[in-house]
Amino acid sequence: MGESFDAVDVIVAKRDRGELTDAQIDWVVDAYTRGVVAEEQMASLAMAILLNGMNRREVGRWTSAMTASGERMDFSRLSRPTADKHSTGGVGDKVTLPLAPLVAACGVAVPQLSGRGLGHTGGTLDKLESIPGWSASLSTGQMLRQLEDVGAVVCAAGEGLAPADRKLYALRDVTGTVEAIPLIASSIMSKKIAEGTAALVLDVKVGSGAFMKDVEQARELARTMVELGTDAGVTTVALLTNMQTPLGLTAGNALEVAESVEVLQGGGPPDVVELTLTLAREMLAAAGREDTEPADALADGRAMDVWRAMVRAQGGDPDARLPVARESHQVLVPADGVLTQLDALKVGVAAWRLGAGRARKEDPVQAGAGVQIHYKPGALVRGGEPMLTLHTDTPEKLDRALEALDGAYFIAPEGSRPDLLPLVIERIA
Amino acid sequence: MGESFDAVDVIVAKRDRGELTDAQIDWVVDAYTRGVVAEEQMASLAMAILLNGMNRREVGRWTSAMTASGERMDFSRLSRPTADKHSTGGVGDKVTLPLAPLVAACGVAVPQLSGRGLGHTGGTLDKLESIPGWSASLSTGQMLRQLEDVGAVVCAAGEGLAPADRKLYALRDVTGTVEAIPLIASSIMSKKIAEGTAALVLDVKVGSGAFMKDVEQARELARTMVELGTDAGVTTVALLTNMQTPLGLTAGNALEVAESVEVLQGGGPPDVVELTLTLAREMLAAAGREDTEPADALADGRAMDVWRAMVRAQGGDPDARLPVARESHQVLVPADGVLTQLDALKVGVAAWRLGAGRARKEDPVQAGAGVQIHYKPGALVRGGEPMLTLHTDTPEKLDRALEALDGAYFIAPEGSRPDLLPLVIERIA
Repeated sequence: MGESFDAVDVIVAKRDRGELTDAQIDWVVDAYTRGVVAEEQMASLAMAILLNGMNRREVGRWTSAMTASGERMDFSRLSRPTADKHSTGGVGDKVTLPLAPLVAACGVAVPQLSGRGLGHTGGTLDKLESIPGWSASLSTGQMLRQLEDVGAVVCAAGEGLAPADRKLYALRDVTGTVEAIPLIASSIMSKKIAEGTAALVLDVKVGSGAFMKDVEQARELARTMVELGTDAGVTTVALLTNMQTPLGLTAGNALEVAESVEVLQGGGPPDVVELTLTLAREMLAAAGREDTEPADALADGRAMDVWRAMVRAQGGDPDARLPVARESHQVLVPADGVLTQLDALKVGVAAWRLGAGRARKEDPVQAGAGVQIHYKPGALVRGGEPMLTLHTDTPEKLDRALEALDGAYFIAPEGSRPDLLPLVIERIA
Repeated sequence: MGESFDAVDVIVAKRDRGELTDAQIDWVVDAYTRGVVAEEQMASLAMAILLNGMNRREVGRWTSAMTASGERMDFSRLSRPTADKHSTGGVGDKVTLPLAPLVAACGVAVPQLSGRGLGHTGGTLDKLESIPGWSASLSTGQMLRQLEDVGAVVCAAGEGLAPADRKLYALRDVTGTVEAIPLIASSIMSKKIAEGTAALVLDVKVGSGAFMKDVEQARELARTMVELGTDAGVTTVALLTNMQTPLGLTAGNALEVAESVEVLQGGGPPDVVELTLTLAREMLAAAGREDTEPADALADGRAMDVWRAMVRAQGGDPDARLPVARESHQVLVPADGVLTQLDALKVGVAAWRLGAGRARKEDPVQAGAGVQIHYKPGALVRGGEPMLTLHTDTPEKLDRALEALDGAYFIAPEGSRPDLLPLVIERIA
């Protein structure tokens, strides 16, 4: 990094719709990580990137500069291939829980470095932490051992991976620059590339409960990430999937673990099963095992065996009773008809307010809180039946949760056919 | 200021091409001044404003919020009307020096709060400080007394005027957001409105040596400022004037004072005289004295009398010898022909490097340093004659100054006619 640049020149180049050079990108990411480029300078640059964009070369270079800001993991000495999955986040998205053991049961190792939830979407680690004894913190050595022995690991990402991204993400959060597609894509991919997986399947959620509200934007993000992965030598595939309505029948930590266990037992809601199998097939194919059918491993209990081993390896008891919230409240169907809509965002915000999510990083979450869904869009319903059950340890928050559900669902006259997006909207490879 | 907002919401509104409400603008400017909105948040907002613009109402509100962040002056008890002038800055622009006493000699008081130079354009205070004994620091009381007694004052703006602007200007300087027309216009006008003048003439420079390189941009800035002044009840007129080539025959502090005295003695370069008289007529008209002809006050020595009184009132000796640089160096005409070009920016940078300007706020300037110009574009020249004389106390800087002059002038064959812009390009009222 011999060259030195002036931060203002870099900002002005992007402000005036120019392309940043490789050397400028390397310098600005490194200098920002070291504190030489000030927060206000990076904020101004991030806004210029949001409004004026970056081309494929620029995003690629930005991503490698962020990857290079920290450690890289190496799975090359494992005895089996690896495949990773990343979801951009949605309501009720517990798919990592059945998916990781399922893919491992099919012979492909799954190193899943996950995060905690912020806002209305839950975090995978928060869900798993509702299992008594389970711990998210593993050393790199423990992680590699578990990958070799069990085949699947879900744990917290170390501080050493892409520190530039951690710093930049915190800045974007307070400067209105979260929504820049080049910055979202490079944030996700710099960490995935640093994690060293050879194959990656991206689940890009689309709809009210997702970060990307429309298909157009989601497609652009997916395409950018697939290009970044491909350019970095990672076999990368993206699926755009429906997040208009919650995934499955639960949103909340222990509630989602229980639903995941149902899937691993061969039951569970059809949409969770379908998405789990679709993603598993993509991961196996990306890892060179397209001949393996994951439905078999689900049916014969092999996936469940890996789940139990995976939970145990991280100190959890797979047979322990999951925490249950102290209070529950039922929301009833208001009239006979067809449920045509159940809004993911509103259900997510309700679960969050019930205690399943956090508003600030340092807040605790309630293991038992959340929303149980009794009907999904398309169902025939009868007035007075339970439609949702709300669970919380803090019943004083119930009113705010019910407020969030205002307008969340719509009952149309019998015979109506809701206009629903398919679960898997598009595949981008 | 009862309402409170979230800084991210304000940034996102402008980022998404929305209009900011009056309440949002009042809040964000005040909260930034108080340190509640962070530097990185204002940087991101400034870039969004630069790229997405603000409409007339927004810029007006932004300007009044900045004016409201500090003190306001009040000239309403003076016995005569006031008129102020602001130049966006150029090379060799010493016009304030003869202009302020000239307008005062015609019965209109001129309160000129000025700044120091940064970069290649000189500052009016730096120029006047080359007069032995002269001081830029006056209390408000002293300033009002001098305005009443002498009619003209040129002094440093107090710290209390538009503190929001001071803070924002420093931020824009390091975040590539200086060039936002709404922010330039509101920066200038918030101070001018806080200064409390009833009439204002703006000299918006256009060309290589100016901040605005093309007429289009300069016109937009001028129009925005005229609207801001008018909306705030200040009679405001703008002239777009030529800054392709330096104004007059000198660029440098004491050199420009000497040239200004020549103008006050009835001589001086024709362009400086013309611009001084044109601006004086505009100021007199804006203050309701369109019947007074300033050329008379220049011819009969009244303007010179006011100059002497003005210098003396601030401790200066109008009869003192001005400082002369220790070394000088001549640049000769390379060939016979017509001088078709003498670039303002290059001459400005040369004067700056010779010691006439500063790179950082805390740097000192050399009183005697600068460039003397022997020919202006359009002149017939002969090879070997002196074209420029460079003055400096630090001859080791001569080489860098000569480098800056590389390509600064062009000699065309005899009979050529340079394509020159008029001195006054356009008037906007």
